[in-house]
Amino acid sequence: MFSETIELRGHIIDSLILPKVLDQILTHGAAFKIGEIKIGQKRADQSFARIEVTAETSDALDELVLRLRQHGAETVERANVHLAPAPKEGVFPNDFYVTTNQQTFVRFDGKEIEVRPAMMDGAIALDRKKRAARAVKFFDVDKGDEIVVGHQGVHVVPVQRSTAHTDIFQFINTMVDADEPKSAVIRELGQELRRARRAKGRIAVVAGTAIVRTGAGEHLERLIEMGYIDRLFAGNAFAVYDVERALFGTALGQDPERAFVGGGHENHLRALNTIRACGGIAAAVQKKILTRGILHACVKHKVDLVLTCSIRDKGPIPGVTTDVVEAQKIMREKLAGVTHVLLLGTVQHSMAVASMLAPTVKTVCVDIDSTAVERAVEHQPLQSIGLVTDVEPFLRELAESLAKRSPTSNT
Amino acid sequence: MFSETIELRGHIIDSLILPKVLDQILTHGAAFKIGEIKIGQKRADQSFARIEVTAETSDALDELVLRLRQHGAETVERANVHLAPAPKEGVFPNDFYVTTNQQTFVRFDGKEIEVRPAMMDGAIALDRKKRAARAVKFFDVDKGDEIVVGHQGVHVVPVQRSTAHTDIFQFINTMVDADEPKSAVIRELGQELRRARRAKGRIAVVAGTAIVRTGAGEHLERLIEMGYIDRLFAGNAFAVYDVERALFGTALGQDPERAFVGGGHENHLRALNTIRACGGIAAAVQKKILTRGILHACVKHKVDLVLTCSIRDKGPIPGVTTDVVEAQKIMREKLAGVTHVLLLGTVQHSMAVASMLAPTVKTVCVDIDSTAVERAVEHQPLQSIGLVTDVEPFLRELAESLAKRSPTSNT
Amino acid sequence: MFSETIELRGHIIDSLILPKVLDQILTHGAAFKIGEIKIGQKRADQSFARIEVTAETSDALDELVLRLRQHGAETVERANVHLAPAPKEGVFPNDFYVTTNQQTFVRFDGKEIEVRPAMMDGAIALDRKKRAARAVKFFDVDKGDEIVVGHQGVHVVPVQRSTAHTDIFQFINTMVDADEPKSAVIRELGQELRRARRAKGRIAVVAGTAIVRTGAGEHLERLIEMGYIDRLFAGNAFAVYDVERALFGTALGQDPERAFVGGGHENHLRALNTIRACGGIAAAVQKKILTRGILHACVKHKVDLVLTCSIRDKGPIPGVTTDVVEAQKIMREKLAGVTHVLLLGTVQHSMAVASMLAPTVKTVCVDIDSTAVERAVEHQPLQSIGLVTDVEPFLRELAESLAKRSPTSNT
Amino acid sequence: MFSETIELRGHIIDSLILPKVLDQILTHGAAFKIGEIKIGQKRADQSFARIEVTAETSDALDELVLRLRQHGAETVERANVHLAPAPKEGVFPNDFYVTTNQQTFVRFDGKEIEVRPAMMDGAIALDRKKRAARAVKFFDVDKGDEIVVGHQGVHVVPVQRSTAHTDIFQFINTMVDADEPKSAVIRELGQELRRARRAKGRIAVVAGTAIVRTGAGEHLERLIEMGYIDRLFAGNAFAVYDVERALFGTALGQDPERAFVGGGHENHLRALNTIRACGGIAAAVQKKILTRGILHACVKHKVDLVLTCSIRDKGPIPGVTTDVVEAQKIMREKLAGVTHVLLLGTVQHSMAVASMLAPTVKTVCVDIDSTAVERAVEHQPLQSIGLVTDVEPFLRELAESLAKRSPTSNT
Repeated sequence: MFSETIELRGHIIDSLILPKVLDQILTHGAAFKIGEIKIGQKRADQSFARIEVTAETSDALDELVLRLRQHGAETVERANVHLAPAPKEGVFPNDFYVTTNQQTFVRFDGKEIEVRPAMMDGAIALDRKKRAARAVKFFDVDKGDEIVVGHQGVHVVPVQRSTAHTDIFQFINTMVDADEPKSAVIRELGQELRRARRAKGRIAVVAGTAIVRTGAGEHLERLIEMGYIDRLFAGNAFAVYDVERALFGTALGQDPERAFVGGGHENHLRALNTIRACGGIAAAVQKKILTRGILHACVKHKVDLVLTCSIRDKGPIPGVTTDVVEAQKIMREKLAGVTHVLLLGTVQHSMAVASMLAPTVKTVCVDIDSTAVERAVEHQPLQSIGLVTDVEPFLRELAESLAKRSPTSNT
Repeated sequence: MFSETIELRGHIIDSLILPKVLDQILTHGAAFKIGEIKIGQKRADQSFARIEVTAETSDALDELVLRLRQHGAETVERANVHLAPAPKEGVFPNDFYVTTNQQTFVRFDGKEIEVRPAMMDGAIALDRKKRAARAVKFFDVDKGDEIVVGHQGVHVVPVQRSTAHTDIFQFINTMVDADEPKSAVIRELGQELRRARRAKGRIAVVAGTAIVRTGAGEHLERLIEMGYIDRLFAGNAFAVYDVERALFGTALGQDPERAFVGGGHENHLRALNTIRACGGIAAAVQKKILTRGILHACVKHKVDLVLTCSIRDKGPIPGVTTDVVEAQKIMREKLAGVTHVLLLGTVQHSMAVASMLAPTVKTVCVDIDSTAVERAVEHQPLQSIGLVTDVEPFLRELAESLAKRSPTSNT
Repeated sequence: MFSETIELRGHIIDSLILPKVLDQILTHGAAFKIGEIKIGQKRADQSFARIEVTAETSDALDELVLRLRQHGAETVERANVHLAPAPKEGVFPNDFYVTTNQQTFVRFDGKEIEVRPAMMDGAIALDRKKRAARAVKFFDVDKGDEIVVGHQGVHVVPVQRSTAHTDIFQFINTMVDADEPKSAVIRELGQELRRARRAKGRIAVVAGTAIVRTGAGEHLERLIEMGYIDRLFAGNAFAVYDVERALFGTALGQDPERAFVGGGHENHLRALNTIRACGGIAAAVQKKILTRGILHACVKHKVDLVLTCSIRDKGPIPGVTTDVVEAQKIMREKLAGVTHVLLLGTVQHSMAVASMLAPTVKTVCVDIDSTAVERAVEHQPLQSIGLVTDVEPFLRELAESLAKRSPTSNT
Repeated sequence: MFSETIELRGHIIDSLILPKVLDQILTHGAAFKIGEIKIGQKRADQSFARIEVTAETSDALDELVLRLRQHGAETVERANVHLAPAPKEGVFPNDFYVTTNQQTFVRFDGKEIEVRPAMMDGAIALDRKKRAARAVKFFDVDKGDEIVVGHQGVHVVPVQRSTAHTDIFQFINTMVDADEPKSAVIRELGQELRRARRAKGRIAVVAGTAIVRTGAGEHLERLIEMGYIDRLFAGNAFAVYDVERALFGTALGQDPERAFVGGGHENHLRALNTIRACGGIAAAVQKKILTRGILHACVKHKVDLVLTCSIRDKGPIPGVTTDVVEAQKIMREKLAGVTHVLLLGTVQHSMAVASMLAPTVKTVCVDIDSTAVERAVEHQPLQSIGLVTDVEPFLRELAESLAKRSPTSNT
């Protein structure tokens, strides 16, 4: 039998750190013995636990300790991280440590260095001279870069429950199912967005085509006009839908004012052609060809627009990056500083954006598909809300709630 | 090879009768030869086709002709129906003709007798003396009753497209998907309901618990108050939810005004207990214990309330029939004379009610589950609309649309 | 501010009792102070916590303590329960304590009495003379019966993680999503069922119509033949589908051997008629009219068959209770002694049965709808597994896994 | 009132051409008068109809005639197409004719020229000298290219029902719902694939990650080994999953042999890193690093592998085109000559591929989401089947069905 002693610190009970650690130990068929435990008396107090973990093989113990680290466990013996050079450009050394989106520290030369930025699905590159650690993606790495291997010396600090204030994001279960009431959540979300504005937060929306198609665009426009949106992430198709609606009043040729009279793809393709002819969205607004719609509102209100392409697109709007690796770099850049994200009616983009978020970004996902909602928010525990509903009533109610008070008023 | 000649009459092209007949013939591996065909020049004109159908075996031909009859085919040689006595109470003779919900005639003694009412999943009992035919369920039949066997002499007349007017129900595809615009359909539905009122139609709602839980109850109450609802079909659970909301302001203990603060079943059970103590819904209204909510509105506005039970119920409200066969009889009775049905957010009740509708009842189904919507309306071709959406935005928009004009105003 | 001190005992960390209690306190806007805490060093050791809870109003505190009790909290001051007489037959006194399905004790005359059986959504009737407490439904209660009111003196003991053995049911998250591998879970479930047989457990299946329609019936028959099923709960419609398949080889008239050749309801209705003519399932088997299928296997292998009706049924099979309250009584009776339940492809019946289960019944739910699966198992924490998949591959793999070894062999 | 006379030819009844045309006319609020009609007596006979269409405005008539053309209508007066030059590279002239995926002819200089290839969502470029017409995408067009504008002179020939043989694709409704039997369809599909092989058809699979994750990979490998797959289209993520499974036996770190023991993203990222280090899939096979799995089978059996990227990818495998416009060109090229496509468990790729298919490509879509299935096959009427089910039982049953006979044997 092989043993190692780990330590946990913080709000380890109510942020579920200790229960998750014990669950992982049991799930992996290992045993535990709690050596010392100190539970904070009040909400603001820190707790502490020292646990001896025992597994049958050395490999099983190593695998388990890696999992426990991701829930915030530290080993008692603080060793330095191991490093290995990247064998070639774009390739990490074997056994590289795979990052999570949680706050992470590495121990080097006896000191704890924070890995910046926190980013999922990368490696950690360490700069010995600058004593700096950064999370890197494949495209970031050059031959010879020193990369953390194994997990020794890595310390993850999971997001914990705030002690100051219980906002709507900080519950254990924050899914609102299709048949549950949503008004209270939407209203509190409105208040949170107001607070965010006052605190100079940055709010991003990830927008799916259903917003335009179901006629919810006007509500999103109101949010933009009221100054609640700083960045808008969407697919090329979303942009084309919005332009089609603005130019022709239709969605895939269907006039929303005429029930069951289907249209064809003509207007959609022509909208795309028009923007291509203009040379892009901003140019189309400038030329007064695009005079309404969500994109128009974005240009007018200086919302940063990040459009990306997929193999389903009928053709790119000028200026859109068609290379997905380039697009990811741009998205990552544009997500820096964002404090709140609304993921609205688009699985594909929501998952892409969600995988790039820092763990403290407050995240709301709205979709009619409950599985999609769960997945989109699973990496933001204690920071996310999922609502299973149509995107139209959500946006309408949010816009109405925000319109009642100006963004600068107190809550 | 075995052949039989069939005839089709009516709007056999645009009501899809001829195409469906040819599709059935091909699907069954049989062959056809069109003997005579006359296509109406204009929309109002009748068409006619005489088709010789050939199959490999006599049984296959018989099975095929049965299917074709259900699409409106008549055999050229008009024979009388065959009859056999019911062998005992509640049991039909072998090979009894199984009814559809389409208008059906039987030939007896050389005359065509209409089967009344048109009702699915029953048999046809013929009264020789009265020369009357009626569709009967198992529980309707007594030993010795004369029941139609085989399908000779049976003539089905499918619903055809109206020639006078194309309303929103009369399209081939009337499903509105989750990401399609719904406002135009809801607005036209509102106009249809206004027309229905003026024409002394009867409108029924089949209501699921999500209406109460999502807070859409107020919109349904407005419809009731404006006089648009004549009958309300629901489960016992719907009633208890509405009472819980009215008495305690909660749904399954959850206060819709407090985000994520879950409740328990206590208020739900206590609401049920209160109604049981009162002796029923009407009594609770009379005693001024139940002073708001949908059921209260039903009692006040004399909406006929049909509540049924299921094995999931926590206990019956007094007056509710707990026997499902009895409940079906009551439902059938209460659906007589109904001209429009809204099936809202409840698969179980929608399917039950849908199976009892005459083919001319205009039917709207609203649910977040597209498969459920499709099934609920499949027996009402050219008379139904399906909307895949939350029930809350649907009811809100319908109520707003109807509130703009009084029910008695012209469209 | 109002305070009360509660105590928690048992595996309060890894069974999530303490975290859930703290979460409830925070969610309700209350505060806590942990007075004393003792955490068991090893898995088998008990833990203990004493917590002072403070809320703003007396009512809020009372509501909160009720919630905490349901997670296993006891108040320090052990008072006797309060009792009130039932005002009339079938009606509980106001403010009756609403039962959960967890093990529950009431304090009466200074002694703790266990409420038997543990049953959800009822009240607790106390017999002073016998010093016995039982959970009662509305239909169980007579005028004057003494019923527990409020929640003083009630002590709930939630199911905790076993200390002896970690079986597949005892994880915090036991949902297997549509795109996750299922073989390992199914194989371990097979081993669990083998163990159950050896330990004289009782296994019940709740069976939906999709089992018959998708052709998975043969796999269920194998389970029955191998002796793994003791009770089968299903709807009347399931029975009729199985008979139709046995008599005609079709499902709703559709021959599974002929692609896309749809049938009609005729065979379905005739199957029902045949069983009615025979006088029931057992009679049809005896008369050698029903010679194959699931029901036939049930009769041959003496599986207890519990069929219930719904308003969607086309007509009851003889012997089936058509009254839902009566049906619930029979179901409750037939679930006594059951140790394992498989809920297969039927939301309606699964939810009904799930609401009647003791908290220790190991429960597996299989359905293509993830929301349905979650709801069906939510009342069986640490005792349930949910698999989002078609019921056919699940049953096939389970039958294959069990066929590899005889039920009497060791694991 | 404005009128135009149109003509229809072919199997206009059983291929639903005439009914759809009449439905469009009614839906658009227009009127019709059938001038001449000749219905083929037998299945192989052609039919003909001449119809005068009347609409209220010239624009409405023009819009309607465009729709009718897409169902195969020709105007009686055969005019030449109108042409306009592309205003700049990558931009079509205003009012360009938007192509469908149906066989299309343009009339130029009094002659009918077929547009090749048939391709959706493009324009038609006409080469006067070569008298050739081709469908072009935005990226195909150069400044000054002559492009068809309006719809005059365009003639669409929709796919019609074969007269020789009714295969499983040629039914009006070819959706198999979750609760319907699938064996017969899968068996007939197996026979179709055998016929396809003998006839030198080309079979493509579009593969989603669920195939690997649910353990269905082995069945797909068998299909590859038996020689039934010519091309495999998938996302980068599918490839990484397959490599992770091959190298580590896990999927997202989860060992399919250990129930509920979740893993992390480490193995996934390391699998990706390994392939990057190798320099690609083929190199990894050559170096004997990748020795099993689907990609390995593809390399060994010379299946053409087309991998594309999305913004959700964690990093591209070497050799994968990261530019989506380039990727589309490659996909289009690799789809040339394909006669059968299986779209398995991936909405995103299925929709992308489906939009590039010629109308005669026989298409099968399998997914657990019924809406996705419907959309993936909607552009292949009379040539497609949709099955709502898990991809695992589908692939297993198909592989078993094909393994029973060798691909070269007769059906």
